[in-house]
Amino acid sequence: MTELKSMSKDELTALHNKYLKEYNNYRDMKLNLDMSRGKPGAKQLDLSNDILKGLDDYHSANNFDARNYGILDGLPETKKIFSDLLDIPEESIIIGGNSALNLIYDTFVRLCLFGTLGSTPWLKLPKVKILCPVPGYDRHFSICEELGLDMIPVPFKNDDLDMDIIEKLAAEDETIKGIICVPMYSNPTGAVYSDSTVERLAKMKTAASDFRIFWDNAYAVHHIYKENKLADIFKLAEKYENEDRIYMFFSTSKITFPGSGVSLISASKNNIEEIKKRMSIQTIGYDKINQLSFVKFFKNADNIMKHMEKHASILRPKFDMVIEILEREFKENKMCRWLKPDGGYFITLFTYEGCAKETVKLAKEAGVIVTNAGATHPYNNNPKDDCIRIAPSYPYMEELKTAMEVISSCVKVATTAKLLEQFTAIPE
Amino acid sequence: MTELKSMSKDELTALHNKYLKEYNNYRDMKLNLDMSRGKPGAKQLDLSNDILKGLDDYHSANNFDARNYGILDGLPETKKIFSDLLDIPEESIIIGGNSALNLIYDTFVRLCLFGTLGSTPWLKLPKVKILCPVPGYDRHFSICEELGLDMIPVPFKNDDLDMDIIEKLAAEDETIKGIICVPMYSNPTGAVYSDSTVERLAKMKTAASDFRIFWDNAYAVHHIYKENKLADIFKLAEKYENEDRIYMFFSTSKITFPGSGVSLISASKNNIEEIKKRMSIQTIGYDKINQLSFVKFFKNADNIMKHMEKHASILRPKFDMVIEILEREFKENKMCRWLKPDGGYFITLFTYEGCAKETVKLAKEAGVIVTNAGATHPYNNNPKDDCIRIAPSYPYMEELKTAMEVISSCVKVATTAKLLEQFTAIPE
Repeated sequence: MTELKSMSKDELTALHNKYLKEYNNYRDMKLNLDMSRGKPGAKQLDLSNDILKGLDDYHSANNFDARNYGILDGLPETKKIFSDLLDIPEESIIIGGNSALNLIYDTFVRLCLFGTLGSTPWLKLPKVKILCPVPGYDRHFSICEELGLDMIPVPFKNDDLDMDIIEKLAAEDETIKGIICVPMYSNPTGAVYSDSTVERLAKMKTAASDFRIFWDNAYAVHHIYKENKLADIFKLAEKYENEDRIYMFFSTSKITFPGSGVSLISASKNNIEEIKKRMSIQTIGYDKINQLSFVKFFKNADNIMKHMEKHASILRPKFDMVIEILEREFKENKMCRWLKPDGGYFITLFTYEGCAKETVKLAKEAGVIVTNAGATHPYNNNPKDDCIRIAPSYPYMEELKTAMEVISSCVKVATTAKLLEQFTAIPE
Repeated sequence: MTELKSMSKDELTALHNKYLKEYNNYRDMKLNLDMSRGKPGAKQLDLSNDILKGLDDYHSANNFDARNYGILDGLPETKKIFSDLLDIPEESIIIGGNSALNLIYDTFVRLCLFGTLGSTPWLKLPKVKILCPVPGYDRHFSICEELGLDMIPVPFKNDDLDMDIIEKLAAEDETIKGIICVPMYSNPTGAVYSDSTVERLAKMKTAASDFRIFWDNAYAVHHIYKENKLADIFKLAEKYENEDRIYMFFSTSKITFPGSGVSLISASKNNIEEIKKRMSIQTIGYDKINQLSFVKFFKNADNIMKHMEKHASILRPKFDMVIEILEREFKENKMCRWLKPDGGYFITLFTYEGCAKETVKLAKEAGVIVTNAGATHPYNNNPKDDCIRIAPSYPYMEELKTAMEVISSCVKVATTAKLLEQFTAIPE
């Protein structure tokens, strides 16, 4: 087959029309499939149904009545399991409510309102900038935008952070106050930050003394194909005496139930002390019955790892299916490329420049909802318009197959339409 | 017996020494009783133990899988029960997490950061003042203090708000942006705001167009002796076209379990829309499994009212006991007065001026912990030093009896010591 870019207008038009016909067939099926968010599927949720069986004892390990007020920072046995699971000290942990996103939001709000460890509240400064690796997580960007923090997109390079750029920016600009990122199975690319990247983040000189790393370790144990290991940023930060730089976030939203998991923030002694003091004004404490249920269900960190293997075995065929269909559909014409992750929740699809929005729009019109193109970038603005986040977890296999065929079809229509544009400028 | 104030120095000294001896006997008992917070007792918590039995279905009334992400503002059936219970429209309700205090905090934070309905963010103003009825709730004061909002104490009059003062202040000073209060069984006095007070709050002219009433209706159904009825501030506010003025807060913290109840905020259409938009940045949603458990346990609002009667029957003997001991101990010498509430969680004790702190200190030294004197006032500053909050709910009856005897003894020691001070200035 002729290479796409060397096709004549007639050849391309013929191809476009062929793709359009296929697309219209899909559209006539009046599908209704939602792949917009990284939601676990029903089978995954079923893995944790025993949590719903309730509790026969409401006492914590230290014989505290978990039904009543008290214990702001979480039950000791809940901390213990997370400490073992994530290899962080129990005393570095505060257990939150059902949402790590909420802990991230609250942490940003505190920095804006109060500063940290004696620094100026960010809202009192004329400008505060946050580094945002792109493609990245739309809900992170929404928080920064909501709080008026300027987002500076920073690129990936070879599926890792481009640390040269980050070090340079952080060192030169004191209005750059932090970075927000998903270091393990990054949302959406699946990148796992290399040891060198983690060390450079922990070590780097920052013009702002209150530079903060929002280390959203959402997928720390969410392996699918391979068990990657992330370097311990806390230990590295301690080595360079930057331990106050890091806030780590984690939750069981994608381990048990997204609606009612347990979240945590982990940080240095100074930070934990400060957060607890501020948090004690905000709440008397988070849901300890839920914390107990979590402990009763898992008992220990090993069981969580076994549980995650079950998640992986449900997710793997779905990720396989996405990759297979992409490989099949774009074997001849390489109209897009994709990143196959070792874990996490997403597959990132890169289209020709200027084709992502049109692809998502076409898919929507055919009843397949994908995350908005642009959502992977701050301010919904991907200048290249080439990135689509695929979330394979929620649909059933058959649905997923159809959805991926539809999306592939949309990529083909959008790409050929885009390529045809070059001819419109040329008089016949 | 001679009236206290007309006693000679010798008479008073003799009395003081008698009281001191009694107090020392108590102190020798090495007690360890905590009456500092409004915590339900174990028997009260037992009333809701069936919640711990878990769920056999995780689907909501609209057939939504409550285990997964989604439904930011709460399950429809949860809203329905609160709507019936509190006589507010379902669409005026957002269900929160386990803490109404957290919703109050978040609401203040949003006003500080973003303003409301187009108004200037409070943090961008040189000064923002909040009216605080005193005696009031220490955690409300802590939030205002944390956010740098100036607190203006406003007094009660005949166990109701002094609306003349409040109307005058709100009308004259545009830096006064709100009032935070517990309108039903007020914390700590137990006052129930009269219909006229509620209407005047809804109606009054305020210099600030973004004046807000934080209506913390924490004890809306927490009757003990008599079922009082609070006027409907939303309906009244609508009548005067001030419906955006009110944020109402409620929770089941003192209905089921304080550690894992369900909270809500209720407000006008404009406010709810605004809050949901902001909230969607902060979280994907609160714990819907907990919301379902609540619904499964109670089924309807009537059952909550029956449940509250059981709470009342546990609390009533405790409140009776406190009042009985105070009546017995101060029958001869009226060294203090107290307010007997119809509901709620507290009994307020007024000592002679300048005697509250000393009483609380003496009690602490005898092993009986009472809320800090001063906590009932902004900045921990009660200029009269005459107010002590008694929380009878948590201790067992026998403990409560002892605790109240100790506190009475402390009042006697502190009062006679205070009265003796007048003689020290006079040369013998």
